[in-house]
Amino acid sequence: MAPDGERRARVALSFLTKPGDPVLGAALQTRTASELLALVTGADADGDALLAGEAADSALCRAVQRWRDRLGEIPSTARLAAWQDCGLRLVMPGDAEWPTQLDDLGEARPLLLWARGTADLRLTCVNSVAIVGSRAATGYGQHVAIELAAALAEKSVGIVSGGAYGIDASAHRGALAGGGDTVAVLAGGLAFGYPQGNRGLFEAVAGQGVLLSECPPDAAPTRPGFLVRNRIITALSRGTVVVEAALRSGALNSARHARELCRPVMAVPGPVTSEYSAGCHELIRDYGAMLVTCAADVLTHVALAGDVDGHGGPRHGPATARDRLDPIAVAVLEEVPVRGGRGPASIAVRAGVDLDTALRCLGDLAADGFVERCDTGWRSRKLGPSG
Amino acid sequence: MAPDGERRARVALSFLTKPGDPVLGAALQTRTASELLALVTGADADGDALLAGEAADSALCRAVQRWRDRLGEIPSTARLAAWQDCGLRLVMPGDAEWPTQLDDLGEARPLLLWARGTADLRLTCVNSVAIVGSRAATGYGQHVAIELAAALAEKSVGIVSGGAYGIDASAHRGALAGGGDTVAVLAGGLAFGYPQGNRGLFEAVAGQGVLLSECPPDAAPTRPGFLVRNRIITALSRGTVVVEAALRSGALNSARHARELCRPVMAVPGPVTSEYSAGCHELIRDYGAMLVTCAADVLTHVALAGDVDGHGGPRHGPATARDRLDPIAVAVLEEVPVRGGRGPASIAVRAGVDLDTALRCLGDLAADGFVERCDTGWRSRKLGPSG
Repeated sequence: MAPDGERRARVALSFLTKPGDPVLGAALQTRTASELLALVTGADADGDALLAGEAADSALCRAVQRWRDRLGEIPSTARLAAWQDCGLRLVMPGDAEWPTQLDDLGEARPLLLWARGTADLRLTCVNSVAIVGSRAATGYGQHVAIELAAALAEKSVGIVSGGAYGIDASAHRGALAGGGDTVAVLAGGLAFGYPQGNRGLFEAVAGQGVLLSECPPDAAPTRPGFLVRNRIITALSRGTVVVEAALRSGALNSARHARELCRPVMAVPGPVTSEYSAGCHELIRDYGAMLVTCAADVLTHVALAGDVDGHGGPRHGPATARDRLDPIAVAVLEEVPVRGGRGPASIAVRAGVDLDTALRCLGDLAADGFVERCDTGWRSRKLGPSG
Repeated sequence: MAPDGERRARVALSFLTKPGDPVLGAALQTRTASELLALVTGADADGDALLAGEAADSALCRAVQRWRDRLGEIPSTARLAAWQDCGLRLVMPGDAEWPTQLDDLGEARPLLLWARGTADLRLTCVNSVAIVGSRAATGYGQHVAIELAAALAEKSVGIVSGGAYGIDASAHRGALAGGGDTVAVLAGGLAFGYPQGNRGLFEAVAGQGVLLSECPPDAAPTRPGFLVRNRIITALSRGTVVVEAALRSGALNSARHARELCRPVMAVPGPVTSEYSAGCHELIRDYGAMLVTCAADVLTHVALAGDVDGHGGPRHGPATARDRLDPIAVAVLEEVPVRGGRGPASIAVRAGVDLDTALRCLGDLAADGFVERCDTGWRSRKLGPSG
C-alpha cells in the first residue's frame, strides 16, 4: 500500500487535474505525487523553488499554474470521510485491490480509482472481458449483449463496461443474470451517478460487482471524459467486444485503445441493413477485429490467467511459473487448500506473514492463476499454471 | 472453333459420362475427345487395340467399360437438332463464346456447355461476380441478395448464380431489376428446367442473360451434381459472395472452389441469432473470407478486367498489356472506335480478317479490358489497360 502522504497527494491532485491529464502522467514518471503537489500548493518557498528549476515555458509550468487555480476544489477531510461513509473506497497503485493491468497504460494510468461494491476489483478483473457498444442499441444488440455477458459470467469471466444505456446496461444485466461479477466504469463521479435512469442498475452492480470511476465522486461527466474513460475499460479487461456500433461511435474509440494495448478487439456482426452494426462490420472489414458470435468465440481469443487447457495460452510457461514465485508467495500458496477454502487471516497466520502481505500475495497468485476465491475464502486452482 | 469431329466427340462423351468425371478430365489432358470416343465405341479393332495398350486395371480402362454401357444414351442427330431448334446452343472450348476463365479448372473443366439466352456468355462473365447462398433463405437474405445484385448490375457487373430458390433466385431477380446480365448455371439439363417453380424466372434470365448447364438438356439434377456444378459458378466469376448460408450449406462448397481457384471469397454478415448466417460468419471467422456489406465492398475485392482506377488491380500491367497483343488483335483493335460503336462485320472488313477471327479477337480484347460492347456494336474502353 502507498504511504499515507503519497495517498493524500494523489487524492488532492485528482481534484486539481482532469482524468488522463498527459502532463500529470508524464510528470509522475519522474516525480512522486507529493513532490508534484508541493509544486502546486507552493505554500512554502520549497514549492516555488522547485518550480523555478523548470524552464519557465515548460508544459508542466503552465499546467501547475492551471492546477493552482483549482486548489479550492480539494475537499475537506470531513467531505472525503463522508463519501467513504457512503460506501466509496479509494483504490490506488500499490494497493492489494489495484488491478495491475492498468499499469500497462503507462503515463495514461489513472491517478487513483473510486470504487463502490462488494466485489474485489482486482480479482474481478483478472479474468474479464469488456463488452461495449452503442447507447442507441437495437433490440438485437441488447439481446446479444445480455446473452453474451450471461454466458461469459457463467464461465466465471468478469464483465467490464461503461454505465450508459444500451449495450453497456445490457452487458451488466446479462452478467448479473449469469451470477457473475461485473464492473461498471462511469465517466462521471460515483456520487453523481450518471445517467440517472441507470441508478437502479448501479445499485445492483454494486451489490454483486464494482462501480468504478477515476473522477471525484461529485464530478459530472463531460463529453471528452467518456472517451478518456474508455481506456480504463479496455485496460482492465483481457479483450474488448463491440456488440453494436454505428460508424463513428464511441465504441470504436474503445477498440482503438484495446489495439494500442495489444488486447484483442472483437466485434459482433449484425444485419448489413442496420446502421447500428455498420461500425462492427467496419472493425472486422478494415481494422482486423475478430468476428465473434458467442461466448465460445470470445474465449478463443482472450488468454485467461492460468488457462492451460485450450482457451488461449497461459501467461507464463506452466512448468516454470511456480519456480518464479518469491519465497513469501510460495509460503502463502502452500497454505491455500485445494478443497474447501481458507480465510486470508488464517492463511496469513499459517504462512507467518501479516494480513496485508497475505492479501497482496493472494492477489498476485490469483492474477497468475494459482488461486481463486470461493465462498469460504481462498482455494488453489486445479488448473493453475503449475499444472 | 473446334473441328467438327472433335465437337461431335465431346457431345457424345457428355452423354456417356457424369459432369466433372475426374477420369475423363485426366484423359483429356493427353488425348483428344475423338481418340477417347474411339476407345469407348470400340466399334472397330482400333478402339480395342488402343484400349489393350492401357494397363488392364487402370482407372481409364474401368471407366471406358462403364461408358460403353451407356452408348445407347447418345442422342440422334435429329434429337440434338430439336434441342437446338428450341434455342439451345452448344458452347465449347475454342469457341468465341467460350469463357476462357473456365480453363483455370484444369482437368475439371467442363467438356462443353449448353446455353440458352440472348447474352453472350463470355462477355457477360468477363466482369462478373457470383452471388450464392441458401435455398432456405430468410427475408433478410433475399433482400440483401436482390439489393447487392441490382447495385452490381447497375455498375455493369454480370451476376452468376445457380437456379435454386432463395438466394440464387433473388440474385437473378436483382440483376434483372438492375438492368444487368445474369447467368444461371443449372445442375440439371436446360430442357429439364429444375426447379419447376423457377421456370418463369429462367425465361426472364434467358431473355436478358444466359441459362447454362454442362448436363445433357434432358438430364434430371442429382444431389452430387449440385456440388459439381458449383465449380462452374465460381470459375466463371471473379469472386464469390455468400449471402446467407447455414453451417454445412452447399454454398460453403462454392466458397471452397473459389479458394482453390484463388478467387476472392466474400461473405455477408447477418444476425448472430440467425442460423442462416452462421455459415457466413464461419467463413469470415475461420476461413479468411472477406466481410462485405454492399456492392462497393465487393468491388474493392474483385479485380475487374481493364480496371485501372482503384477497384483491385489490373490483370496485366497497364503499360505493357497492349504490347503483348498479337498483330491481328492490334489490327482489329485499331478498327474499334472510341466513340459511337461499330459492328463486328464492319470491323472484320476494315481489319482485313474474317468475321470469326474478328469475333474471337473482340472477345479476347474485351476479356483484357480493351473494348466493350455497346448498343451499336463495339467501342474502345476509355479506361482500357493501355491507359
